[in-house]
Amino acid sequence: MIKRQIASASRRVCQPRLFSSFRTVLQTAKPVEAAPKKPAKKAGFFAYTLYGLVAAALGETAYLTYAVYKETNPGSQLPQSTLKENGNKKKNVVILGSGWGAISYLHSLDTTQYNVTIVSPRNYFLFTPLLPSVPTSTVGSQSICDPVRAIARQTPGEVTYLEAAATDVDPVNNTVHVVHKNMSFTLGEAFVNNDEPIETTLNYDYLIYAVGAKVNTFGIPGIPEYASYLKEAHDATAVRQKLFNAIEASRLLPKDSDERKRLLTFVVCGGGPTGVELAAEVKDYIDQDLHKFIPDIEKEMKVVLVEALPNVLNMFPQKLIEYTKEVFNNQGVELRTNTMVKKVDPKNVYASVKRADGTSEDVVIPYGTLVWAGGNAQRQLTRSLADKITEQKTARRGLLVDENLKLDGASNIYALGDCTFTTNAPTAQVAHQQGEYLADYFNKLAKLDDLEYLSSLEVNPESVQKLARRIERQKASLKPFVYKHQGAMAYVGSERAIADLSWGSWSTLALGGSLTFFFWRTAYVSMILGVRSKILVVSDWIKVALFGRDCSKD
Amino acid sequence: MIKRQIASASRRVCQPRLFSSFRTVLQTAKPVEAAPKKPAKKAGFFAYTLYGLVAAALGETAYLTYAVYKETNPGSQLPQSTLKENGNKKKNVVILGSGWGAISYLHSLDTTQYNVTIVSPRNYFLFTPLLPSVPTSTVGSQSICDPVRAIARQTPGEVTYLEAAATDVDPVNNTVHVVHKNMSFTLGEAFVNNDEPIETTLNYDYLIYAVGAKVNTFGIPGIPEYASYLKEAHDATAVRQKLFNAIEASRLLPKDSDERKRLLTFVVCGGGPTGVELAAEVKDYIDQDLHKFIPDIEKEMKVVLVEALPNVLNMFPQKLIEYTKEVFNNQGVELRTNTMVKKVDPKNVYASVKRADGTSEDVVIPYGTLVWAGGNAQRQLTRSLADKITEQKTARRGLLVDENLKLDGASNIYALGDCTFTTNAPTAQVAHQQGEYLADYFNKLAKLDDLEYLSSLEVNPESVQKLARRIERQKASLKPFVYKHQGAMAYVGSERAIADLSWGSWSTLALGGSLTFFFWRTAYVSMILGVRSKILVVSDWIKVALFGRDCSKD
Repeated sequence: MIKRQIASASRRVCQPRLFSSFRTVLQTAKPVEAAPKKPAKKAGFFAYTLYGLVAAALGETAYLTYAVYKETNPGSQLPQSTLKENGNKKKNVVILGSGWGAISYLHSLDTTQYNVTIVSPRNYFLFTPLLPSVPTSTVGSQSICDPVRAIARQTPGEVTYLEAAATDVDPVNNTVHVVHKNMSFTLGEAFVNNDEPIETTLNYDYLIYAVGAKVNTFGIPGIPEYASYLKEAHDATAVRQKLFNAIEASRLLPKDSDERKRLLTFVVCGGGPTGVELAAEVKDYIDQDLHKFIPDIEKEMKVVLVEALPNVLNMFPQKLIEYTKEVFNNQGVELRTNTMVKKVDPKNVYASVKRADGTSEDVVIPYGTLVWAGGNAQRQLTRSLADKITEQKTARRGLLVDENLKLDGASNIYALGDCTFTTNAPTAQVAHQQGEYLADYFNKLAKLDDLEYLSSLEVNPESVQKLARRIERQKASLKPFVYKHQGAMAYVGSERAIADLSWGSWSTLALGGSLTFFFWRTAYVSMILGVRSKILVVSDWIKVALFGRDCSKD
Repeated sequence: MIKRQIASASRRVCQPRLFSSFRTVLQTAKPVEAAPKKPAKKAGFFAYTLYGLVAAALGETAYLTYAVYKETNPGSQLPQSTLKENGNKKKNVVILGSGWGAISYLHSLDTTQYNVTIVSPRNYFLFTPLLPSVPTSTVGSQSICDPVRAIARQTPGEVTYLEAAATDVDPVNNTVHVVHKNMSFTLGEAFVNNDEPIETTLNYDYLIYAVGAKVNTFGIPGIPEYASYLKEAHDATAVRQKLFNAIEASRLLPKDSDERKRLLTFVVCGGGPTGVELAAEVKDYIDQDLHKFIPDIEKEMKVVLVEALPNVLNMFPQKLIEYTKEVFNNQGVELRTNTMVKKVDPKNVYASVKRADGTSEDVVIPYGTLVWAGGNAQRQLTRSLADKITEQKTARRGLLVDENLKLDGASNIYALGDCTFTTNAPTAQVAHQQGEYLADYFNKLAKLDDLEYLSSLEVNPESVQKLARRIERQKASLKPFVYKHQGAMAYVGSERAIADLSWGSWSTLALGGSLTFFFWRTAYVSMILGVRSKILVVSDWIKVALFGRDCSKD
């Protein structure tokens, strides 16, 4: 059973991340990536090429400058108000969350049509696909954080943001109770919480429920105490700190000691893209950079990837799985498949390995750093919301929604992303498309609402009939959500990536190698929302290409 | 008494930071700063200027590429050994610390002459003069961190680095006991210490004692519990988090509430350069960037600087103090001088204000975020070392050293920087010069030791006499340490800085304004040790110029 759970879990972290049109990819990202190479070109040889490049660079610079200016100097917004210009009531929309679903929704919503409040304990959107690059500082964590306030300022209407966690949703009275708590953060001598929690209650006409999920540990003892996750920005910091703690501690021990070997073992559990990418990044880091400063670390340090299923990346075609295995093998990443974690203590992972003949064997894997990269579990808030609605009583794996993402059993709550259970995998790609869909749906709903309001004021029967027809047409435009899978990608190390792409029913393409790695980078950059973050991520990559990765434990 | 302590304290954080030759400033830093402006130049107009600029840019690029390559691809080092090539014993040097003193020493030492081990719980050197820019993310904290290992790899001989804290120095048996402890770091759900401390004992022939000092709270109740410091990189992170906690919390409260006003008050205690620069940076941040995303924050938020003396920056000439006051006044930073902090609780600073007529008045200053930027106190290790040596019994304010920085009462321990008490102020500038001096002293000492060794083997009386003369000359070359004050600088906000420069007895120059700000930046960049950090800091400044400062609490 745990095996099945892990399978679905790794599916979740996987199949991400390719939902921008390829035109955008080529237009926006390629010139940015190409830029650092220009100084190497020889002038005078291919003068026209050079002129073309300069013109392109100038054009690109002008475009970027404009985009950056627009992003950092947002114009004025239509203020919140009780009534719209036409006299109709402006309804309150409360969004819970600041992940893929919530932010895609906010980004595409016509915020002049609603009084929008977005509530999340995390005041930024995190570009999760690049999170595995953060512990090794290939990408800085600030580069993949987009402040919610900055995103909200790009929309046409005023949006209120509150840094708070929702603690209770009351679907009968249409209220959400929210609490601001200071983040407990103890690093250094003098940092304590010095404030009481501040609480308030918000009324909503519509609730957009996009709180995501928490990490599923499947009840395995020791995981919450001893493993790190890789879900939030601070997780990446924690993984880096643990890795460095282990390496630095090992320097004080004799070369042949078991304790030194243990400390120098980096274990990742979960063979989805997150786990695979983290293992690949850490191995790259050791082989490409750390070995310059810590003699023989590349020989001593071991990176182990543990997966309960027979294969890692099991949502990818077999060809790409084989390719990944080959790269891992050449790199020296130890792949331990068919290995189910049973228990974890401060120094060891206890697992059971299923052999080909069907029998199983207990193994002990000592670790210095342990990362648990697998699976979703529902948050307490989601469970308590489900308990309040009869139609959600059977919703064990996530909230149940209809074809318009409306919560079963509620008239004005919409749910999307990892807190729901649908036929789609709980991926960033799905949440992103759901957010865009729902924003479009709400833009149409606002028009419908206006028409119905006008119709209620109208006395002329001809006009009423005309309005009724428009209302019908508007209702007909409210189509159900359809997910369009665009593919999945993963970085597998040594500057190689794999991609499994699909354009509807037209074609499927399986790619692996260095070119795919460039495609992977280009596609990711194109998927980043803000121009600022795009440029920061690219400049992080340039930094690493120039200087290598940093080795300070900071 | 406290007043006097604070005075000496602010002197400590002050008078930093201008100890690179100005030629270096002009050669290295100016082209780097100028680079981003180039695309704006009009081609065709001043063709020669353009060609010149392109040539300069190419030359600079080539130089930087070479410097970066050399820094990131260090050559091989002479391995550690018991004997030198000439048969003389190679002595063990143990360095404690990774601050200005220790790193300057390491950087200039001929590491082929000694077996060098450097021990510090912090595995990087922190460029402290730019630390006040980190909480507002004007400069990223990773940009001002230089890994000890990277610095050690630039020296000609093999250097061992251990991430550990010294817990005991035994000056009789010439040993240091060191302990590696995992940093306690609780941010997020799943991060715990999972290792026991690892301990070991090191033998030294020479000990370089440069452990710095800790923050002096002058016994004021509440400071350690409720205030943040600004001494380490994680302090800067903590200040940022606290600032954002306070701002975000205030959004949930009604506009006229006292609690909201309290939360939106940022109080800095200590009017030395660190305190002044932090207050200036935070005010800049609010006025230049935050107000774009948080409406009216620039009107609501208050920045207060508290100082016990009648003036801030009291080591600067009166003219510059007046200039600072004027800038603060225009900016709206509230300056509260003659205000001595008595007590701090979770929400208020209790202080006593000395009036012109000599009487004093008690005041309460409510705060949302509190930073304590004042003073040095000796570390436990330093106090216990002083207790072991008769000659150090009177050393209350720091270790006593002779003209060669040798510890009074010890034959083979040298101390420098903030852990010592000398006629020089405990500044980065002093520690840096002491480190360079001591490295030079040790390079000479190694030669002297070799000569004495050769002399002990020599039988020919003529050669012995010749060697004796060389030994005398070598001994005579061991000059005492002389501090050359080069000046002090501080950023005062609104892109203005002040500088008080001196070239020996030749001339003194007091500058304030926007040009000084550029000079301040140029000089700081030239003072940064590594090419990598130089480029990162400059690119951080460019980032801020392009995008403004980030507003995600990360």
